[in-house]
Amino acid sequence: MQNNTDSSRPLIAVKSDFDRFVEWQQAFKERDIDIVDWRQRHQHLERLRYALVWQPEAGALADMPALEVIFSIGAGVDHLKGENIVPEGVPVVRMVQDSLTAGMVEYVVFQVLGFHRNMHRYIHDQRAKRWSPIPYPMPAERTVGILGLGVLGSAAAKALKQFGFHLAGWSRSPKSVPGVKSFHGDAQLPDFLAATNYLVCLLPNTPQTEGLINRDTLSALPSGAFIINAGRGSAVVDDDLIAAIRSGHIAGAALDVVNDEPLDDKSEYWEMENVIITPHIASMTHPSDSADHVAQNIRRHLDGLSLTHLADLDRGY
Amino acid sequence: MQNNTDSSRPLIAVKSDFDRFVEWQQAFKERDIDIVDWRQRHQHLERLRYALVWQPEAGALADMPALEVIFSIGAGVDHLKGENIVPEGVPVVRMVQDSLTAGMVEYVVFQVLGFHRNMHRYIHDQRAKRWSPIPYPMPAERTVGILGLGVLGSAAAKALKQFGFHLAGWSRSPKSVPGVKSFHGDAQLPDFLAATNYLVCLLPNTPQTEGLINRDTLSALPSGAFIINAGRGSAVVDDDLIAAIRSGHIAGAALDVVNDEPLDDKSEYWEMENVIITPHIASMTHPSDSADHVAQNIRRHLDGLSLTHLADLDRGY
Repeated sequence: MQNNTDSSRPLIAVKSDFDRFVEWQQAFKERDIDIVDWRQRHQHLERLRYALVWQPEAGALADMPALEVIFSIGAGVDHLKGENIVPEGVPVVRMVQDSLTAGMVEYVVFQVLGFHRNMHRYIHDQRAKRWSPIPYPMPAERTVGILGLGVLGSAAAKALKQFGFHLAGWSRSPKSVPGVKSFHGDAQLPDFLAATNYLVCLLPNTPQTEGLINRDTLSALPSGAFIINAGRGSAVVDDDLIAAIRSGHIAGAALDVVNDEPLDDKSEYWEMENVIITPHIASMTHPSDSADHVAQNIRRHLDGLSLTHLADLDRGY
Repeated sequence: MQNNTDSSRPLIAVKSDFDRFVEWQQAFKERDIDIVDWRQRHQHLERLRYALVWQPEAGALADMPALEVIFSIGAGVDHLKGENIVPEGVPVVRMVQDSLTAGMVEYVVFQVLGFHRNMHRYIHDQRAKRWSPIPYPMPAERTVGILGLGVLGSAAAKALKQFGFHLAGWSRSPKSVPGVKSFHGDAQLPDFLAATNYLVCLLPNTPQTEGLINRDTLSALPSGAFIINAGRGSAVVDDDLIAAIRSGHIAGAALDVVNDEPLDDKSEYWEMENVIITPHIASMTHPSDSADHVAQNIRRHLDGLSLTHLADLDRGY
C-alpha cells in the first residue's frame, strides 16, 4: 500500500493468482481507490470493506471484520464455495467485463478453427518433418454446438457465425440467441448432440452440470466430433472422454479446465495425440479493463445503491 | 470421363494436386459440363477447349490444340509462369471464390489468435507436462499489420477487427479499407512495420515482393513481433528470418508457404520452437464452391462475352 493513503478513500485487498499487483494498483489508483496486497491485509483490517479475490484460503475472508463486499476475480464463483470461505451475509459480486468475454471468444474461435483446419495434426506432422496437406470441409458443412448460452456462449456463437458455421446451443432453460438453433433441458440434449460436430462446453460448475460429458452424451455425438471444454473440468467424466478419444469416436479435445487443477503429471491427457491442454487461460481478468466494474460497484455501495452482478453461490454463477 | 458424354457439352480437363476428381466431377455434372481427368486428356484433345489446372507440366498445355481458356485452381497464378507453360494468346482466369477467401481468413485469424494467446508456448508446455498460465494483452493493445490489401487482405482485416485488434495494411499503391490504417509504397513501409506486432503477409509472388521480408524490414518491426506468411514463400529471405527468430527479436513465425515446397527435410524451420509449419493449406479450393466461377466463365466464353477475373501473369495475380 502507498504510505500516503487517504483514510477516507475506499480500500480493497487484492488476491490474484498471478503477480499482477502493480497492474491492479495502477488501475485502482486511477479510480481513487486504494489497494493493499492480500498478504498485507492484516495491517488494515479495520478499513478493509472490500476484497477482490481468486481462491481465498478457508477462514481468510471471515477474519476480515469490516468486510462488506467480496468481488470474484474470475467469471465463475465456484472457487468461493466450500466450508468457511464466504462469511454469512456478505454479498459476492462476480466478474463481468468485456475483455473476459472477449478472451473466451478468442479461445473458443481459436480451438474450433484449429480442429476444423486440422492444426492439431500439423503439429505432429511438423515434428515428423512431414509436408502433407489435408483437405478440409467448409464451415457451412459443420455445426458448432455450445453447452451454456449465457453471456459467454452467446458471444462465442456470434463470433463463430461470422465464419459461416452452423450454430446450435443448449441450456437448462429455454433461451433465444439470434442465429443459434436453441435446445434446452434433458429431453432435447440428444437432438442437440446428434447435430454437433464441435462441442464447446462453457458450463459453470453446478450439481446439474457435473459429469454431463460422459459415455452416454459422447456416444450421442456424431463420429469424428471434437470437444472443447472452457467451462469447468467437473463437466467431464475423464475416463469416458479418454475412452471415446482412444476409440476414435471423438477425434480430438481441447481442455482448458480439468477436474483437478493443475492437471496431474500422471494424467493420460498430457500425451494424447489429439488432446490439447491449456492451463485454465481461456479467459483471464485484465486489471486495466476490470477495475471499472469493481470501482462502479464500490461507488454504488458507498452511495447506498444496490450492487450489480451479484453471484448466487448455490447456482454457481 | 463418363461414356455417355454428349459431345455438344463443354469439356474441361482437370489437374488437381489432391485426389478430388470425384468432387470436381460431381460439381461440374450439376452444371452440365463434362470433365476429364488430366491423365486421360490425350484421348479428348480435339474437344478440350478448357483446362483447370494446378502446376501443369511444361509443354502440357501447349500440346492441347483446341485449348481456349486456362483456369487456375489456386488464387495465385505463379504456378503458371515459366518457359512453355501457358501457350501464347491463351487467357488465364484466376480462381476467385468465397470459400477461398474464407479459408484464408480462417487461417490468418487462427494464427494471429494463437500467437496472441501464447498457444505456440502451450504446445511445448504440454509436452513437458507443465501447467503454467501466461498473461496476455488485450487485442486493443496490439496491431495486426497486413502486407497486401487485396480481396484476401481486406477480408482478413475485417475479421480481425471484430476481435478488437488495431489494423494496419500496406500495399504497393494507395488503398482504402474501412477500419484499416493504410500505408503504401516503399517510403511508408518503415512506419507501417514500426507499428506492427503481428505481421501477416498475403503478398503474391512478383519481382517486387521477392525478399521483402528481410533483415532490414524485420529489424523495423518492434521487438517481440510475430510473422505469419500465407502469401508466397518468395517474400521471405529465410536466413534473415531464422536469424531474427534465434536472436529473439522475432518471437515466432507461422509459415504456410516457403521458398521451396515441400519444405526440405534439412530446413531449420522444422525444429524451431516458435515456428509453426503448415503445408500450403491456408486456403484450398473447394470443388463444390468453385465450380460456379468456372462454369459461369465457360458460359460467357461460349456466348462470346468477355471473361471475368483474367490474370496478368507478369503482374503475378
